[in-house]
Amino acid sequence: MIVVMAPDAGIAEIGGVIREIERLGYTPRPSHGRSGTVIGVVGAGAAGDLAHLAEFPGVARLEEVAHPYKLVAREARPEPTVIPLRHGEVGGREFVVMAGPCSVESREQVLAAARAVAGAGARVLRGGAFKPRTSPYSFQGLGEEGLRLLAEARRETSLDVVTEVMAPEQVALVAEHADILQVGARNMQNYALLEAVGRARRPVLLKRGMMSTLEELLLAAEYIMANGNHQVMLCERGIRTFETATRNTCDIGAVPALKSLTHLPVIVDPSHAVGVRAWVPAVARAALAAGADGIIVEVHPDPDRALSDGAQSLTPDGFRELMASLAAMAPAVGRELSIPV
Amino acid sequence: MIVVMAPDAGIAEIGGVIREIERLGYTPRPSHGRSGTVIGVVGAGAAGDLAHLAEFPGVARLEEVAHPYKLVAREARPEPTVIPLRHGEVGGREFVVMAGPCSVESREQVLAAARAVAGAGARVLRGGAFKPRTSPYSFQGLGEEGLRLLAEARRETSLDVVTEVMAPEQVALVAEHADILQVGARNMQNYALLEAVGRARRPVLLKRGMMSTLEELLLAAEYIMANGNHQVMLCERGIRTFETATRNTCDIGAVPALKSLTHLPVIVDPSHAVGVRAWVPAVARAALAAGADGIIVEVHPDPDRALSDGAQSLTPDGFRELMASLAAMAPAVGRELSIPV
Amino acid sequence: MIVVMAPDAGIAEIGGVIREIERLGYTPRPSHGRSGTVIGVVGAGAAGDLAHLAEFPGVARLEEVAHPYKLVAREARPEPTVIPLRHGEVGGREFVVMAGPCSVESREQVLAAARAVAGAGARVLRGGAFKPRTSPYSFQGLGEEGLRLLAEARRETSLDVVTEVMAPEQVALVAEHADILQVGARNMQNYALLEAVGRARRPVLLKRGMMSTLEELLLAAEYIMANGNHQVMLCERGIRTFETATRNTCDIGAVPALKSLTHLPVIVDPSHAVGVRAWVPAVARAALAAGADGIIVEVHPDPDRALSDGAQSLTPDGFRELMASLAAMAPAVGRELSIPV
Amino acid sequence: MIVVMAPDAGIAEIGGVIREIERLGYTPRPSHGRSGTVIGVVGAGAAGDLAHLAEFPGVARLEEVAHPYKLVAREARPEPTVIPLRHGEVGGREFVVMAGPCSVESREQVLAAARAVAGAGARVLRGGAFKPRTSPYSFQGLGEEGLRLLAEARRETSLDVVTEVMAPEQVALVAEHADILQVGARNMQNYALLEAVGRARRPVLLKRGMMSTLEELLLAAEYIMANGNHQVMLCERGIRTFETATRNTCDIGAVPALKSLTHLPVIVDPSHAVGVRAWVPAVARAALAAGADGIIVEVHPDPDRALSDGAQSLTPDGFRELMASLAAMAPAVGRELSIPV
Repeated sequence: MIVVMAPDAGIAEIGGVIREIERLGYTPRPSHGRSGTVIGVVGAGAAGDLAHLAEFPGVARLEEVAHPYKLVAREARPEPTVIPLRHGEVGGREFVVMAGPCSVESREQVLAAARAVAGAGARVLRGGAFKPRTSPYSFQGLGEEGLRLLAEARRETSLDVVTEVMAPEQVALVAEHADILQVGARNMQNYALLEAVGRARRPVLLKRGMMSTLEELLLAAEYIMANGNHQVMLCERGIRTFETATRNTCDIGAVPALKSLTHLPVIVDPSHAVGVRAWVPAVARAALAAGADGIIVEVHPDPDRALSDGAQSLTPDGFRELMASLAAMAPAVGRELSIPV
Repeated sequence: MIVVMAPDAGIAEIGGVIREIERLGYTPRPSHGRSGTVIGVVGAGAAGDLAHLAEFPGVARLEEVAHPYKLVAREARPEPTVIPLRHGEVGGREFVVMAGPCSVESREQVLAAARAVAGAGARVLRGGAFKPRTSPYSFQGLGEEGLRLLAEARRETSLDVVTEVMAPEQVALVAEHADILQVGARNMQNYALLEAVGRARRPVLLKRGMMSTLEELLLAAEYIMANGNHQVMLCERGIRTFETATRNTCDIGAVPALKSLTHLPVIVDPSHAVGVRAWVPAVARAALAAGADGIIVEVHPDPDRALSDGAQSLTPDGFRELMASLAAMAPAVGRELSIPV
Repeated sequence: MIVVMAPDAGIAEIGGVIREIERLGYTPRPSHGRSGTVIGVVGAGAAGDLAHLAEFPGVARLEEVAHPYKLVAREARPEPTVIPLRHGEVGGREFVVMAGPCSVESREQVLAAARAVAGAGARVLRGGAFKPRTSPYSFQGLGEEGLRLLAEARRETSLDVVTEVMAPEQVALVAEHADILQVGARNMQNYALLEAVGRARRPVLLKRGMMSTLEELLLAAEYIMANGNHQVMLCERGIRTFETATRNTCDIGAVPALKSLTHLPVIVDPSHAVGVRAWVPAVARAALAAGADGIIVEVHPDPDRALSDGAQSLTPDGFRELMASLAAMAPAVGRELSIPV
Repeated sequence: MIVVMAPDAGIAEIGGVIREIERLGYTPRPSHGRSGTVIGVVGAGAAGDLAHLAEFPGVARLEEVAHPYKLVAREARPEPTVIPLRHGEVGGREFVVMAGPCSVESREQVLAAARAVAGAGARVLRGGAFKPRTSPYSFQGLGEEGLRLLAEARRETSLDVVTEVMAPEQVALVAEHADILQVGARNMQNYALLEAVGRARRPVLLKRGMMSTLEELLLAAEYIMANGNHQVMLCERGIRTFETATRNTCDIGAVPALKSLTHLPVIVDPSHAVGVRAWVPAVARAALAAGADGIIVEVHPDPDRALSDGAQSLTPDGFRELMASLAAMAPAVGRELSIPV
């Protein structure tokens, strides 16, 4: 259940509701938005216990939540979650582009990529320092050295940095160097990791597991929010199906579905979704048209020599063209995207 | 193999190549486009037999086709296939909208739907007279009476009509009343039907099977072309995956993939792909952004009373809003779509 | 709804119920088993109309059917459907083995295969005369000549013959030469074909579509039964999933699921399910252990030269070994399978 | 590449090969079996460097490994890996049954379950102390208290204990109380966890991810082996497909496929695979027939009151019947399974 507080409810009234929820043996999960406060009620007490909360001072109404998730549900928060960046924000009117190489490979490579994507209008630099690889014998990333290179690129370009964290014990280290913590598709149901990023003070980009339903994705986000971190972005990155012409199948219908089910921002990763460079821009444009709040796309200064994902990485030129086409489209679908002239 | 004739090759030269192909025990499949003629060579003769064709008068070059399909391959035809309509054409610069009810239910219903979609800028009226239904006890369509109602709606609105044909013996009847023959998803590998529509003199809208790869879709189109009918449109209508939040999963990456593999037009059916009315427009816009040549969308004058697919049918008002948003977007992605003011 | 007649109900009582059902505007579908008669009631009359049938003479009880299918449901027939063969029967205690080549290629080949499988204990000869092929350029089978060769092999071995029928207009021809009509996976929802075999006087082996649910399979069988043919065998032949190590994924859980949902016999096709010769016997044994009523397995006298499916065909020696292992297992799982000594 | 040492190769010869591999910049991964030693060569040196190893004393031959995995490959170890238990062993002639509740709920419950499954012939007690749950609000297991209860049940019954470990930092604690560490399906690609159990001194039961290919499963096992732990069992527990009649789809073909690709034992989990109590025994028998080395099955003293997975848990009586049927079948498929009389 969700307790929706009146817009003018004060701290004393909110506190009174929270204490009553605790007294009844439930856990209160307050969420404060611009248009007021809602309090999720979590736990397994007796049904019907809570009806009298509707009479408490400052309470606007009680809402039953039909889903197994609560805090992520649209009903729990009337306005969209907006996550501020160094420049701009995710979840507002702007269509935010995150771009950069699959892996951080060297100082030269990451700086070249950062300059290229910043110069074309990206807001966030992506790049993997810790890489989850299917084989133990594949390149596993530069680790902490990679994080330092990303931080250096950020200082030079003033892009925000998003990078993957693979284990609970890495969270503090990654949070020190990065602005946004990425949870990868393979770890979407790694609950120890979800709890750890839920306790971190950094926004989280949560990638949908390649085998995960939208409900499971929302429940994974619920793990993060239930641990106190409300700054979660959901990322559709293609699901695994029988089709092998593309690397994965981009579930574009997930964009309107998620936007109607949750207040959290939705990002699309067209690079992993299709896996073929020439087809990435079409899917990126489809994401904008379908209502996504942004994309995360792989760009490499020299894709043919990339240590990973070269076949799906855009060149800097290709990325500039993509940005120009997105900027041309954005106003027609009610979004903003400005690119350097 | 494909024999590409020089742009100025004459009928005698083309005939000479065809006769030589036949003499060697292969079957020639000529295709005439604006920029010249190409001749597919089909059959199982000895490899290497054909090299001397390169020396024949009027031959520009020979091309090996790496795919199991030949006539549908982009290599087989340098320019896109364009299919003329009563007004406009499919496969050119225009983004073509086909719309109408799932099933023809009554004269009033189909005429109301036809006027509504024509008034909003659709080019083609869709509507099922013969309905493939999972259960033998579900409404199976009005049959021939439905075809006559569609033809009446066409006379009134000058829309083209697309409707499904379910069996070889229905082809003549359906072709008498409809402009475009639809092969449904369940019949994508019904080879007797593919051969029958391949011998018909009507364009074909071939829907991808819910379980079919892009290669299988292209090979199904090859069956139609190999029987002489080159006017084929491919339709992505959502594939079956593990996800149940949407009716099917719209494989938006299939659009750029198909556009790069074949010269045939690509249509998206957002209604069957997501199955939820509120999510249909987002996917329709994604189709335009991804490079599709058109959409086919369900519109019903009174969706809540529809005999089939009501939950995914747009209302006439919803359809007008969708058309307005598509018309606003189209120029930004290099397409045309004009709607009545 | 299902009307279950008392075991001792006579023809007059059954007729009375049938007439009353018709009078109310429904269609009666009687089914006569050893333990009595049940009458399915099909149609879309007003709910509640039928309660008074419970008072009719000879009626034991009325049963609501919770599934969208009726005639195939276990509730509709208390005892298993048993389909008699020239020797033995399908759906009884015997575990029935159907075996033979993918395609009929020549007189020598089909006779050699027939002798080999008959000599090892098979009851039914399989072999394709009309072949559904993904590509229009692949070998499409010998057609009517193939049917004649199968009939010759039957005369020599006294095996029953099962072969595929691909279109309604082929039904009469195939039924003339074959004992069992096979509907292939690609045609599982070809309703014109289902209706045609439903009107035929031959048992039908209905293969599950490669991406069809069990409910869709049961509804396809319902189409056949609703047209009057009650001798239907369901065949699990592997479904399409993301896994590519095997040709398809054998859904072994479908066997107990189907046996609990329907009275129809269940056959497993391990050859198409795994697609690798060395792995076929393990899956064949799993089918027996899981409760299937039989298998259909590809055997070729010289698999390396087969025109189709050679990689998954057993050799005659491999088939004999498989039969020996199945015969050793059968009594331990309550089945019979006798092989020549 | 794999270096296969001669059966009589001594420690000095093995050491010589290892030093040479290291000198060339590769990492040697020796594996000692009853029939000799093989040394995997891991790393990214220049191709062709290693040919001269064939001439080293004690080397029988070099083998290229066509797969991306090395240590798990059948080529790397001529005989099956056998994992000893307190009573019996996994991977030998015996068909090993692991059984018990989904979650440890209470002392009474786990002791009752342990006695029941031990009394019916199980070798290993399963039970979850740390439970991965899709929702943060579901019962998450008793944690360390659950581990102590499992250890108590082991002391009383002398069953081995298998239980899940969900995070690297839990490995030491779980290894203290359990005999076998289970890595759950959701964590199959949690590489930090795979590395941690790879450094543990306990056998590992590695469950296949619900949408993981066999190759990914083998590579996950390779992570564990590459970290030094060679006692890995692979568990097929059903994959996620479009079918919803069963909880997952049991990929029975994976059993012969894995047995031909790897020397590691293969276990099937019929409970999660089908998810319906009545259908579990059929799939368990199919696993035995298909060549699995054992099963892991859910048994609860009172399934209708289970906190998790009650619908798929066998009762103690149902489990005894299953064991009797498996024991009856085992000799017919060349396996041993003895049950108390």
